[in-house]
Amino acid sequence: MKELAYYDGTIGTPDELTIPFNDRVHFFGDGVYDATVGGNHKVYLLQDHLDRFYSSAKALDIKIPMEKEEFGELLTRLLSMVEGETHFVYWQVTRGAGTRNHTFADDMLGKLWVMIRPNRLKDPEVPVSLITREDTRFYHCNIKTLNLIPSVMASQKAKEAGAEETIFHRGEIVTECAHSNVSILKDGIFYSHPNDTMILRGISKTHMISACYRLGIPVIERPFTLSELMDADEIIVTSSSNFCLHANQIDGKPVGGKDPKNLLLIQDEVISEYLAYTGKKSLFD
Amino acid sequence: MKELAYYDGTIGTPDELTIPFNDRVHFFGDGVYDATVGGNHKVYLLQDHLDRFYSSAKALDIKIPMEKEEFGELLTRLLSMVEGETHFVYWQVTRGAGTRNHTFADDMLGKLWVMIRPNRLKDPEVPVSLITREDTRFYHCNIKTLNLIPSVMASQKAKEAGAEETIFHRGEIVTECAHSNVSILKDGIFYSHPNDTMILRGISKTHMISACYRLGIPVIERPFTLSELMDADEIIVTSSSNFCLHANQIDGKPVGGKDPKNLLLIQDEVISEYLAYTGKKSLFD
Repeated sequence: MKELAYYDGTIGTPDELTIPFNDRVHFFGDGVYDATVGGNHKVYLLQDHLDRFYSSAKALDIKIPMEKEEFGELLTRLLSMVEGETHFVYWQVTRGAGTRNHTFADDMLGKLWVMIRPNRLKDPEVPVSLITREDTRFYHCNIKTLNLIPSVMASQKAKEAGAEETIFHRGEIVTECAHSNVSILKDGIFYSHPNDTMILRGISKTHMISACYRLGIPVIERPFTLSELMDADEIIVTSSSNFCLHANQIDGKPVGGKDPKNLLLIQDEVISEYLAYTGKKSLFD
Repeated sequence: MKELAYYDGTIGTPDELTIPFNDRVHFFGDGVYDATVGGNHKVYLLQDHLDRFYSSAKALDIKIPMEKEEFGELLTRLLSMVEGETHFVYWQVTRGAGTRNHTFADDMLGKLWVMIRPNRLKDPEVPVSLITREDTRFYHCNIKTLNLIPSVMASQKAKEAGAEETIFHRGEIVTECAHSNVSILKDGIFYSHPNDTMILRGISKTHMISACYRLGIPVIERPFTLSELMDADEIIVTSSSNFCLHANQIDGKPVGGKDPKNLLLIQDEVISEYLAYTGKKSLFD
């Protein structure tokens, strides 16, 4: 098949699968998710993503009805059923099904969902354009929940502005983007917001930071400001689907482009890791 | 039937109805809702709830695929199909169905949902117990969205503590409860948080404020603090299912009970309005 959907043991296409009315995701967005790239039918950085997924669920007392290892095997098996070489591999767990009430039974068992479809990674050589927006989200951004309306609205604003992504800031402090992390290079140092409750601990970003250490590029995890962002040598946007994009425009103003050497070193390092893991020859093969 | 579920033109019981995998509520909690009491098969304060529902949708650019009047008629018709005298009447609109992407097509049409089930209103003479918790929600609490995880977790904490509801506060400032508004009486004056982005504009609270004006009880809409809450003469908890409950305990400490005369005046006034609207003889008939 070309696209796959899975819900609580049933496999189909996204068009044919349906979900019980009483799943709590319908009334509360009550669930957490994770996602990565499938390359050559390998779930990229599977263990990292499983660890984060189970941590998100635990933070909300959601009971995943499968052990981590078994679920990892399920993801790999489902990915093997979908045609193509590069995929978007997405999964979530919702708290369970039951009559709508804010409270839930202590022994409620979660429902697992998977969605797999073709993906095409963006060319890291092509710079992206960004906009900025006040970060009005809740203070649980470290948990990868399905409560994503502020990110939806921010992404739509970016689309309307012809931009790739929206950078959130709480007052002067830059946090992250609507569905990516954002980091900067300045004077040869890599700066990024620390992993507190204001941002998601990005797995691509975590691997990028390891890459910086390997390359001898100093890393400082501290919040940076909007002016530091605009004045940065390079602005780096990271997500599990696009490991290292760089920006050349923010709110219509030219930015970055002042440290292409370090940018390229980092890009090569994180892309090499992906190619080694998946056995692919290039991002686009 | 005893319970009814409706989705995008299809009617069934909540157990038999299913939802397409690609509804955006599954991935983003992307929708808004409203709810009220059905008494004698009348949708209580229908116009107020419709106005709020369409305002919530408009705030998020969600396109409700039915005019307000027609949808009001649909709600009344669906309520007439369910046995019983008192109901929980719940409805929502999700942004639409489509491949999971944060962004959405400008012309995407929403999906309407309805759920109706038996309800029993709480006895307003019985005081309730409450707990408090830091308000970590987003800054869009004026919109009645399906992004409700913080309210779910706060409600569960109340349940675990044997309490009825959780009062949120941002620092010292009391905002509202997990699924109710909270107001206080002090020295004969009714205080409540103003209708900004920190709270939902409660329809029961709005009608209660009108009742206070009719009764000559002064109303001041301004934020009040945790100490003012603990020191109040009466603590009043208001929702569309329970118009005027009062608390006698917060975080295990005795509170309220010092202005039963004004409390009773307000309770009688809002309950009379409900009985007149629905033609019922009492809250429990």
